[in-house]
Amino acid sequence: MVLGKRSDYGDAKYAGVQVPFSEDIPKTVESYGLCGFDFVVAPLVRDTWLPPAPAVPENGALPSPLKQGDCLYINSSQWANQVVGAVSGWIQPDAADPVVRQRSVAALKAQLGWAAHLGLQAVVLPPPHAPGRCPNYAGVLNQALQGLTHMALWLTVPLIIPAPAPAPAPAPAGGADNGAADGAGAAVSAVAGAGGLDGWEAWHQVRAQCDHHNLLGAALQVGPVLPSAASLKRWGGEPVKALLLPTSAFTANKRGYPVLPKGHQELLAAFFKMGVQVVITGEACHAIPPPAAAAAAGPGAKQLTPAPAAAAAVGPGGEPLGFTVTDPGESHPLRPYWEYLCFLFRRLEVVAEQERQEASYRDYLQVPLQPLQDNLESQTYETFEKDTQKYTLYEEAVFRALKDRQAAEAAAAGPRDPLDPAHATDARGPAAASTSGRPVVLMVVGAGRGPLVRASMRAAARAGARLRVYAVEKNPNAVVHIQHMLRAEGWTEAVTLVSADMRHWEAPEPADILVSELLGSFGDNELSPECLDGAQRFLAPGGISIPQSYTSFLAPVTTHKLHHDVKAYKDLEHFETPYVVRLHRHYLLAPTQPLFTFVHPNTDAPIDNSRYGSLVFPRDPADGAAVLHGFAGYFECVLYKGVLLSIHPPTHSDNMFSWFPIFFPLREPVYVPAGGEVGVQVWRCCASHKVWYEWALSAPVAGPIHNVNGRSYWVGL
Amino acid sequence: MVLGKRSDYGDAKYAGVQVPFSEDIPKTVESYGLCGFDFVVAPLVRDTWLPPAPAVPENGALPSPLKQGDCLYINSSQWANQVVGAVSGWIQPDAADPVVRQRSVAALKAQLGWAAHLGLQAVVLPPPHAPGRCPNYAGVLNQALQGLTHMALWLTVPLIIPAPAPAPAPAPAGGADNGAADGAGAAVSAVAGAGGLDGWEAWHQVRAQCDHHNLLGAALQVGPVLPSAASLKRWGGEPVKALLLPTSAFTANKRGYPVLPKGHQELLAAFFKMGVQVVITGEACHAIPPPAAAAAAGPGAKQLTPAPAAAAAVGPGGEPLGFTVTDPGESHPLRPYWEYLCFLFRRLEVVAEQERQEASYRDYLQVPLQPLQDNLESQTYETFEKDTQKYTLYEEAVFRALKDRQAAEAAAAGPRDPLDPAHATDARGPAAASTSGRPVVLMVVGAGRGPLVRASMRAAARAGARLRVYAVEKNPNAVVHIQHMLRAEGWTEAVTLVSADMRHWEAPEPADILVSELLGSFGDNELSPECLDGAQRFLAPGGISIPQSYTSFLAPVTTHKLHHDVKAYKDLEHFETPYVVRLHRHYLLAPTQPLFTFVHPNTDAPIDNSRYGSLVFPRDPADGAAVLHGFAGYFECVLYKGVLLSIHPPTHSDNMFSWFPIFFPLREPVYVPAGGEVGVQVWRCCASHKVWYEWALSAPVAGPIHNVNGRSYWVGL
Repeated sequence: MVLGKRSDYGDAKYAGVQVPFSEDIPKTVESYGLCGFDFVVAPLVRDTWLPPAPAVPENGALPSPLKQGDCLYINSSQWANQVVGAVSGWIQPDAADPVVRQRSVAALKAQLGWAAHLGLQAVVLPPPHAPGRCPNYAGVLNQALQGLTHMALWLTVPLIIPAPAPAPAPAPAGGADNGAADGAGAAVSAVAGAGGLDGWEAWHQVRAQCDHHNLLGAALQVGPVLPSAASLKRWGGEPVKALLLPTSAFTANKRGYPVLPKGHQELLAAFFKMGVQVVITGEACHAIPPPAAAAAAGPGAKQLTPAPAAAAAVGPGGEPLGFTVTDPGESHPLRPYWEYLCFLFRRLEVVAEQERQEASYRDYLQVPLQPLQDNLESQTYETFEKDTQKYTLYEEAVFRALKDRQAAEAAAAGPRDPLDPAHATDARGPAAASTSGRPVVLMVVGAGRGPLVRASMRAAARAGARLRVYAVEKNPNAVVHIQHMLRAEGWTEAVTLVSADMRHWEAPEPADILVSELLGSFGDNELSPECLDGAQRFLAPGGISIPQSYTSFLAPVTTHKLHHDVKAYKDLEHFETPYVVRLHRHYLLAPTQPLFTFVHPNTDAPIDNSRYGSLVFPRDPADGAAVLHGFAGYFECVLYKGVLLSIHPPTHSDNMFSWFPIFFPLREPVYVPAGGEVGVQVWRCCASHKVWYEWALSAPVAGPIHNVNGRSYWVGL
Repeated sequence: MVLGKRSDYGDAKYAGVQVPFSEDIPKTVESYGLCGFDFVVAPLVRDTWLPPAPAVPENGALPSPLKQGDCLYINSSQWANQVVGAVSGWIQPDAADPVVRQRSVAALKAQLGWAAHLGLQAVVLPPPHAPGRCPNYAGVLNQALQGLTHMALWLTVPLIIPAPAPAPAPAPAGGADNGAADGAGAAVSAVAGAGGLDGWEAWHQVRAQCDHHNLLGAALQVGPVLPSAASLKRWGGEPVKALLLPTSAFTANKRGYPVLPKGHQELLAAFFKMGVQVVITGEACHAIPPPAAAAAAGPGAKQLTPAPAAAAAVGPGGEPLGFTVTDPGESHPLRPYWEYLCFLFRRLEVVAEQERQEASYRDYLQVPLQPLQDNLESQTYETFEKDTQKYTLYEEAVFRALKDRQAAEAAAAGPRDPLDPAHATDARGPAAASTSGRPVVLMVVGAGRGPLVRASMRAAARAGARLRVYAVEKNPNAVVHIQHMLRAEGWTEAVTLVSADMRHWEAPEPADILVSELLGSFGDNELSPECLDGAQRFLAPGGISIPQSYTSFLAPVTTHKLHHDVKAYKDLEHFETPYVVRLHRHYLLAPTQPLFTFVHPNTDAPIDNSRYGSLVFPRDPADGAAVLHGFAGYFECVLYKGVLLSIHPPTHSDNMFSWFPIFFPLREPVYVPAGGEVGVQVWRCCASHKVWYEWALSAPVAGPIHNVNGRSYWVGL
């Protein structure tokens, strides 16, 4: 039974439970299903199973390493989705003893082969026995990964690996013995505190050797003590598939029910939002009070009713969870843990409608639009026109500009005699552009289907200003929509429609205000600078450009999913392309820094819109090492004086959805050691018919310059 | 409203209607929606619209070629899916007059640009004005196609193009004037009868020049006279997107309602099954009897109830159609045509459950399994085990083989004295293998999870034969399933399980019967010959192999969809790979012919499983020209004497679904003129570690040999 109905958290609504070896796995799945859990993590073989010793084939036959009764058995694929296999914990492919090593490799191969044969969705792998020194383990996994098509490998990764212990026992033992590590070569990390090792380092070593294979994920083992919140954030960009949550991490509330400490609650909330599943491990270790005691706990406390009647489930505070439970599950000792997960899951704040709409775009690569080179479709305009917040900001900017003009003109005219006829007739005098004189000439350049015309007309009405509007649009199809709008609104007199490219149009009069919306996710990447440089020819001296200026921002980012999706194209071109992405499962290795700024009107002579920027991002050593997949880009824009339009996280405009961030990938993921800096260079290059970016890493290691000469990606002029 | 609920006919359930130019297209869509139609085909511009004459930009501005009020207008994308745009019929990009030509090109570009801007699902293009001579038309379309991402172009293609007329009028006319053709260079075809031209040729010329672009499809214009059924079949492999069905093609039944002649009914049924949509064109031209007359027609006749009450719709024979209609649509003069389409759609036979399950595999490329090289997953075995018909055939084959052995042994023993003790004790004598003597040794080679063991045990029970079974399987994971089966069935004594590759196993005794299921879609393509050659070492002299023999069959095929899907990989490798495909929208240019045969046991010395075959497929000139995309392959197998297992269409075993046909693509589509032959060579090549096919065309033109040295595709030994 799902933890809750919300769909925007992906698979997080399915909770799992670790179970002992079972000869009748359908029965086990059904029994834990009654208890609430949607899947089980079950050993692939009996604890006593060992692979057969190496043998010479007899008459060409070699017995199967697995025998009926020894191994998890599924006859029908209908069960495969509800079972995650668990590989034996004793396996140590990097053991010093060659016998242990050989047996470990044979056992690992046999168990992975069996799990893949059964078509399981995933298997949980034991943690590297000696973190930082497990190349043979990685080697076997890497070979297995090449043959897999859908089954995922979940490597168990303790968030904190206990302090190094003496060398591991030489012979495989029957039970799970995953905690020991010889520790040699694995530095004690600041992340894990004195004596502990950073689990992320163990994870990174294995997955780097497996070349970041997409079917290899991490199952994070959560202990009672958590690393710092800052270091935990690194997992946000990693392929975490599950949280292994032991019952021992729970404490008891005053009524005896298992609850989690605050830090653990926040951890679960963060991972739920990333769609990560939780698996309860270990035996129930909280004594649940008998029904009578619970009933005596007061109104709203847990009510148990006799089987088979249903009872309303309640959270740890006694609040209803919105579902009923029947006795078979209710009586299971792990049931209270599952109910607590429900409580946490359902307690998460309701997501905003906008974010729900964006859910399908999360971590999905889109190539940026080229509105200058291509004509947009009607539906594209329609989608962006729905961003009312953006046009409200534009309206406010135009309003303030009109007000400032009115104030300036009033001041220039000085106190005047309303009876002086000169003021009423001199249409070219300094006061003429005031509300009672010459109308303000406002040009919307790149008018699309007309939303900025609407915003400007609204602003003029508010400001009591008379406007003469020119709507300039190069897309002949969009112009037809403006024709419809002008007729419908009765604006055919007030607005002159011009079907032209603003860079080549000869305006009949100068503009007082030039309004445009040519910004891309990275500010200048849809060639706003080049277009406005062309249009400012017809801006009156002292005229206003809305926007006035914009700045791009950059930050180094971990995003396994996006890097994998770029890699899937199997070519260089896609690694040299920036993408528009609703970043979701990602981690910024450091705060953003500003990169390029453009100001309008541009008074430079000559105007040069090429740019070069070099940024260095220092990192706190306490945050641990991390992996770098590329850079996330954003922009901030000053429309007019105090009116800011921003997708830069620290200043993001509320409820505005027109732009997702931009992502500049790196060809290869880069290991950034704890406390290491990230250095990056970015060029904005301009040629006669195109503009493009080049980018390169300079720290922690120097890397190739991407997209040289715009060979893979450019924006056409 | 859909024509019917069945989902296996794709979009065929949506019917469209041609409408006049409308300034308020949402209202038009709603009005025809009430009448039943799901979409409208509407002119993109007014009949009177002409593109502006070429002009020099004034001050950098150039007016949009389209004006508000002149063109189909959609403000919101919600309507885009219900409107197909129609390009003006007067357009002749290949007109002799340069003014007409220039205007035609300008008009075509403007209209296509506008339709794409609106995000329409498709536009209907007028038929080539001069079929066989329209390179400029194709050129404009081809350029437009490069810029499209989802909007389809439906080229109107009359099934029969009227006899050549005098040269077309030089100036564009306001109305549709699509029938004329100058005919020079376009041969009068046998397909269309005396004086007519084969519409397929006109279609092929345009789409070949557009390099078979996937967004270019055909909208077949159906006239009152149809071409031969054999020639119509060619469209089965073409990207037909719609049938344009004029009201004039309908006749009236005795109650006055519009109905179609039998040939037209069959045409619609065939296209419905291929998911093709029907568009009704023209004005209503059947006088529907008034309600009173209809009511008087007898019980079950059409009942009209006063608005707004609902009425049960009935087919032309008075049978209920299973839906109710309300008055607004009912009163529309085109409603009876829509109702007749409903009637035809719903009359189609109910599809078999098996075919419904296969619907999602239709025309979907799958790379063949390599069960010898790879170990199959449990679910793959599970899927194939569900093919009960196949195992019933195997059971029958084993049963007959056992019966034949019993009969032969009884004959060899002669009449015997039941009291003679020699017969009872000599376990090695000629009669010993009879039911009362030595058990029959049956070996299942490639036992998988054991279905052939089950079939053999069932056959033995029916024949009253004692069996000693060996189940030989190389996949160690599959062996575990057999262990479970033997325990569950109590067969651990009767069946010896051997985990070995049949090619290397040393059998402890000779086999009387060797049973295997190693066939692929093309018979030998999963290396059944090589495996059985290896296993026949332990077949007793005179022993039986089940199967005994198998033969592959080949036929030339038109399949636009598959060729496009192969081409989408953009590499040579995929054109040199055979695919397993549930062929659906395809056309066999000629009947199949046998290619390679293998017999078991193979008594050749030495055994050579390489093959070379050369086939020539003649075609009836009356069937017309066609396009060739590759070859469809099938097999027939004699399991034992009269027991045939076949996926060869003329002999396909009933209800058997284990194999889909195989498809060998050609790099480029090839035009096969009417009456031209198709010649093909196929090689089966063998090396020490792999087997592969090479194939090449020799007629109507010689083509490159595909997959030389198995460079792109091979089967591992």
